[in-house]
Amino acid sequence: VTVSHLTESELVARIQSRLPPGPPWVAVGIGDDAAVVEAERNRLEVLTTDIHIEGIHFDRRFTPPRAIGHRALAVNLSDLAAMGAAPRLALLSLALPDDFPVGDFDALIGGAASLARRAGATVIGGNLSRSPGPLVVDVTVGGTVKRRHVLTRSGASPGDELFVTGTIGAASRGLQLLRDGGTVPCGRTELKAIRRFLYPEPRLRAGLLLGRTRAASACVDLSDGLAAGLHTLSEASGIGVQVEEAAIPLDAPRHFTSGAGALEAMTGGDDYELLFAVRPRLRGRMRNVVASAGAPVTRIGVCTTGGDRVVRRSADGRETLLPLPGGFTHFAGSS
Amino acid sequence: VTVSHLTESELVARIQSRLPPGPPWVAVGIGDDAAVVEAERNRLEVLTTDIHIEGIHFDRRFTPPRAIGHRALAVNLSDLAAMGAAPRLALLSLALPDDFPVGDFDALIGGAASLARRAGATVIGGNLSRSPGPLVVDVTVGGTVKRRHVLTRSGASPGDELFVTGTIGAASRGLQLLRDGGTVPCGRTELKAIRRFLYPEPRLRAGLLLGRTRAASACVDLSDGLAAGLHTLSEASGIGVQVEEAAIPLDAPRHFTSGAGALEAMTGGDDYELLFAVRPRLRGRMRNVVASAGAPVTRIGVCTTGGDRVVRRSADGRETLLPLPGGFTHFAGSS
Repeated sequence: VTVSHLTESELVARIQSRLPPGPPWVAVGIGDDAAVVEAERNRLEVLTTDIHIEGIHFDRRFTPPRAIGHRALAVNLSDLAAMGAAPRLALLSLALPDDFPVGDFDALIGGAASLARRAGATVIGGNLSRSPGPLVVDVTVGGTVKRRHVLTRSGASPGDELFVTGTIGAASRGLQLLRDGGTVPCGRTELKAIRRFLYPEPRLRAGLLLGRTRAASACVDLSDGLAAGLHTLSEASGIGVQVEEAAIPLDAPRHFTSGAGALEAMTGGDDYELLFAVRPRLRGRMRNVVASAGAPVTRIGVCTTGGDRVVRRSADGRETLLPLPGGFTHFAGSS
Repeated sequence: VTVSHLTESELVARIQSRLPPGPPWVAVGIGDDAAVVEAERNRLEVLTTDIHIEGIHFDRRFTPPRAIGHRALAVNLSDLAAMGAAPRLALLSLALPDDFPVGDFDALIGGAASLARRAGATVIGGNLSRSPGPLVVDVTVGGTVKRRHVLTRSGASPGDELFVTGTIGAASRGLQLLRDGGTVPCGRTELKAIRRFLYPEPRLRAGLLLGRTRAASACVDLSDGLAAGLHTLSEASGIGVQVEEAAIPLDAPRHFTSGAGALEAMTGGDDYELLFAVRPRLRGRMRNVVASAGAPVTRIGVCTTGGDRVVRRSADGRETLLPLPGGFTHFAGSS
């Protein structure tokens, strides 16, 4: 059975059956012209939206519908994490091809609903529409943060140290493995990489604690790769960056071709880790914070005066320019 | 020049150049991982999202890019109007085909920005992505309303009278004229109908005042036609409806085939008028309110006990069933 056999009301009912009852601050939930919510006292609101479109951000041939729903929400939650915000609500906007199976619809909603529940976000509404072709999933999320705990991209100063959570390069390798479609034998590392691509875990707790303790001076999430994140932070803060190639926490380093390893991983995208700057005197506080969030963290370089963005190569100690993100095409994501 | 020649930053700069400076309640605007805003005191927040996708909601061959931007925002503002909310903020999420001309991009943003400014909504952020095919414009808007002023679909009682703002049927006729592509000679009425389709004006002031004065017991906006709106209100409020065919304020009635006129107009869609219920003792208050909002208003019927939804035909006084909206396809909009 495909979605074209159901009415909008029937599809909405299927969504509602996959969601827990709304909390008391939802005055009007799914099913009216708009959702109505109470604001949270003494908090600023953080809003972000990201569109996920078949053929650009995912390929239905190798991305299960559950993962499509998970990822569409995860990329938005990762933006909240980068701002130091706690998730609160989400709106799901879907454009569905006529031949989209109802089972896939349920799985997609299930993937988003499951992550929303774990992240503490309530799905308060959305929109269903037909699509003339590609499946489109556009998610808007809202979070909250105290004014003095907001993390931005622009607060880094020369001398601040640069850190990254987790490891870099797994998701892009996972995507490549999925694209290759089983031509590479899949061991545990490969399955983990695929999982990193399909089910990214936004670093919500780390972002929240970095903001709450004011341990980070600037923060950005790595949706388009570490190199793009470094360019973004550098430009927004008006600083240069010097990154140590050998320090970059590569996922499964043996899989990267020698020499180009770190540079390859840096431009891969879809990591959804946090890149952040820390004043040297706050390094200890930051380490405690991130340890309590259960996120590994690695120092990868420093912020410098001037605008130069360089990578110091481990082989010869020479500096090369930080790889440039591509043009507009780059910003569409890596898949 | 097409958008594929520009970077995301360049496109974002083009958007920012078309927007007025943000108000003081915007703590972090366009250009970070997410937008950060102060909530409005003593107000509930109203959030809604609507996806606009080429080939379903509009046809680029006869919908100018300025109108695409205007409509994508207008349909969301119309949802706020139906809740009695005042617009406050908007997020624009666009998926652009590679061959989308930069001039069209500017015009699309200009159409949305111009309406946003008039409506009092600040564009605080969004998302840009490539599209593998159709142009996609997904807009999320946020508004505010006092708790006791919220309008919902579910508050109508038997005996309440049903009213509709403006006229019905112009937009669907305008769409038909555009589809026919100039084969029908265009007089003033035709141009007005086309304008109603391309540049719908959400009934913001009327919705706001109906909520503020508590003159309406229930309200819904007519995105999918009057018939769909009546079904929605009837179902949500648990009432029946009896509509007088002769009372329906048809736009340019001579254009509708005799007999089927009102029924045809009722299922046309894209009117973006408000349908609302009023307790008989509040009729005077409502008339004053809507007059001060500059919106014509027409009584079209009453709410009844039981669930019957009928139209009383003007020719013979017989009751026929209210036309049914279609299946899922219907809900995608009428174009």
